[in-house]
Amino acid sequence: MKNHFNRRKFLQYSGMAGTAALLPGNAISKSEPLFPENEIGLSKFELETPSLCLDLDIMESNLKKVHENLQGTGIGVRPHTKTHKCPAIAKMQMDAGAIGICTAKLSESQVMLENGISEVLMTGVNISSSKIRKAMQLRKRHSGFIQAVDNKQNARDLQDAAKEAGIIADVVVDLDVIRRSGVPTGLPALELAQLVDQLSNLRFKGILAYDGGAQHIKGYQKRLERTVQTFEPVSATYESMIQSGLNVEIFSGAGTGTYNMMGDVPGFTDVQVGSYLFMDTQYMVIGSKGNENLYDDFDPSLTVLATVINNNHPNRLITDSGAKSLSINKPSGMVIGEPGFSYNAGSDEYGTVTFEKANRAYKTGDLLEIIVPHCDPVVNLYDRIYGIRKGKVESILPIMARGHSR
Amino acid sequence: MKNHFNRRKFLQYSGMAGTAALLPGNAISKSEPLFPENEIGLSKFELETPSLCLDLDIMESNLKKVHENLQGTGIGVRPHTKTHKCPAIAKMQMDAGAIGICTAKLSESQVMLENGISEVLMTGVNISSSKIRKAMQLRKRHSGFIQAVDNKQNARDLQDAAKEAGIIADVVVDLDVIRRSGVPTGLPALELAQLVDQLSNLRFKGILAYDGGAQHIKGYQKRLERTVQTFEPVSATYESMIQSGLNVEIFSGAGTGTYNMMGDVPGFTDVQVGSYLFMDTQYMVIGSKGNENLYDDFDPSLTVLATVINNNHPNRLITDSGAKSLSINKPSGMVIGEPGFSYNAGSDEYGTVTFEKANRAYKTGDLLEIIVPHCDPVVNLYDRIYGIRKGKVESILPIMARGHSR
Repeated sequence: MKNHFNRRKFLQYSGMAGTAALLPGNAISKSEPLFPENEIGLSKFELETPSLCLDLDIMESNLKKVHENLQGTGIGVRPHTKTHKCPAIAKMQMDAGAIGICTAKLSESQVMLENGISEVLMTGVNISSSKIRKAMQLRKRHSGFIQAVDNKQNARDLQDAAKEAGIIADVVVDLDVIRRSGVPTGLPALELAQLVDQLSNLRFKGILAYDGGAQHIKGYQKRLERTVQTFEPVSATYESMIQSGLNVEIFSGAGTGTYNMMGDVPGFTDVQVGSYLFMDTQYMVIGSKGNENLYDDFDPSLTVLATVINNNHPNRLITDSGAKSLSINKPSGMVIGEPGFSYNAGSDEYGTVTFEKANRAYKTGDLLEIIVPHCDPVVNLYDRIYGIRKGKVESILPIMARGHSR
Repeated sequence: MKNHFNRRKFLQYSGMAGTAALLPGNAISKSEPLFPENEIGLSKFELETPSLCLDLDIMESNLKKVHENLQGTGIGVRPHTKTHKCPAIAKMQMDAGAIGICTAKLSESQVMLENGISEVLMTGVNISSSKIRKAMQLRKRHSGFIQAVDNKQNARDLQDAAKEAGIIADVVVDLDVIRRSGVPTGLPALELAQLVDQLSNLRFKGILAYDGGAQHIKGYQKRLERTVQTFEPVSATYESMIQSGLNVEIFSGAGTGTYNMMGDVPGFTDVQVGSYLFMDTQYMVIGSKGNENLYDDFDPSLTVLATVINNNHPNRLITDSGAKSLSINKPSGMVIGEPGFSYNAGSDEYGTVTFEKANRAYKTGDLLEIIVPHCDPVVNLYDRIYGIRKGKVESILPIMARGHSR
């Protein structure tokens, strides 16, 4: 597994990213911009707020750690890029040793495939005939695009569209583990896999079993127990497929909370980690194998910078960053350097910080740096991530698949 | 007050909007689009999902109703465009009789001012020197741009920047009514207004008093009681300003939940309604003057279309529209035609519908149309709103200020 992530490579992507940043989501009018700016080289504290900032040293460390932590297990990494939606970051993940990436939606897959990522496994299903046709066009252009299926009618629809497009499409069967997506494990899954295998324009590639409900359970032991329980029927299904002669090349699942629990699952091939790159307060509280209170396998690299705009009331600060900048999940955002602060983004436009004790006095104009509650939906609010190195803007990463929920 | 909103005008905007839609947020790659589409004229049920749809007949009715309901009160409408972020819709509001619009942020103000809206009151304050300088440049180009201030230092900073820009800037003083933004009512507010009035490059225009906490209180009577209580110190502050000889030309506040309660407040000039255009389940449950159970002053015009992608489990449907498409506020989304459905967007990518009883059987590929919990943050997730008339796409409205939270 290659692992030649380096700074030169990174700068190369950043350059690409910087150019692409001019394309989407940024133009605010047809007239010339009133305030053209070059933000590269600025201190992050000179950025206007709210700003989405990524500490590149920490992110690169997380990027390496996931591979280091899995060394010797034989398990690969297929990062889920729904977390960051940036082709530039997906490229870094590939260079760090990923075997491919995951995407959630068709439009997201297209952004990745059309921007230099050749191995894309879309974990969500396409149901409408228009999406299925587009997916097959995408597959025609990009041979590394793998699609998911979770019911027989859908398999037949994929077959028809693949035939129409004149291709043989790679397909994985998504297993139902949390009553969300997927085909029931056991016979229904086996039969669906066999159907895919028999359909002339589909190629059965393997199975998905992602237990989204396990990722945020507090306590390593509890997550492990849940995972063992989840994988009992999944493994039995896998065995039945092997026994029936199916070629289960891919057996993918697990996320940032369970990535290091899959070594004993026979046939399991790769983990779909996403949040490991950025971290957030939802993950920080789940605890790790060695630390019940803090999940310390990875470090928080993503923050939102907010400005204090009102300090009129004691034990309370108001910022310019509310639900439209931080989403509104629990637990509350964490203010760096102020463990006693509780950051609430309940207002659309305003953040409210309440505290018993502050480490210093805050005046209007002061900046707060916030570790967000849940990174995925927060990233989806912004058009760009500021890549920060040693406190300065090194790159601007365009979130090219932002808002691509189709 | 002009009220000549009509269909011809609307089509004119839609045309503009359709063109502008090509600019921001939509380009997905540097290569030619794989799937160029003309969606105008499609049935809304042919749109790919998730889609943000606006019933134009209902929206136009809401647009008229707010003026009809305020007729004879002497109170004007200054809609808050943070709800829709579309210059095209702001134009409709102006043509329907609005005296101007509100914006929350500087970047949002810029989008509106640079796209044909001349009267813009920004209700949030600018604190950083870079934003203040930009705001003054914007004011230099657009004389109808009014800025807010809520502390003396900020007033002095605005003065310096206005002087530097060679302009006299219009300023309103924001009053603190819910411990969020604003200067305390009473003497601090009076003194701030007097300071603004004295500073040579600022022109005192009036006051803001928006009680965000009152809007969603259930029960008309309770909202009224809260509003009367809120406005006691606000009105006293207003009186002290009048007595001190200040020219309080603007006295603005109230939202969709309290817009019809301001008739008795002396000097009050205009309401900052936003959600009245779209409505959402948070507003629908507050009750109106004549209906304790349903807020029926306005009708829901905004929906998200979602596709059923899994129906494996009884009393449960999974859709393709989760937190990235519907935000995650309470109460849950309302599925049109299925009063017994509870729509939960707790997963980033998936919606989960649970029910005891459905009016029909649902198969994968079926569409659900959802009234969202809270319209503002949902609109901020999309790049475009589909304008629907009699079930067909009539226009595509670009959400040009989407993500403009700075």
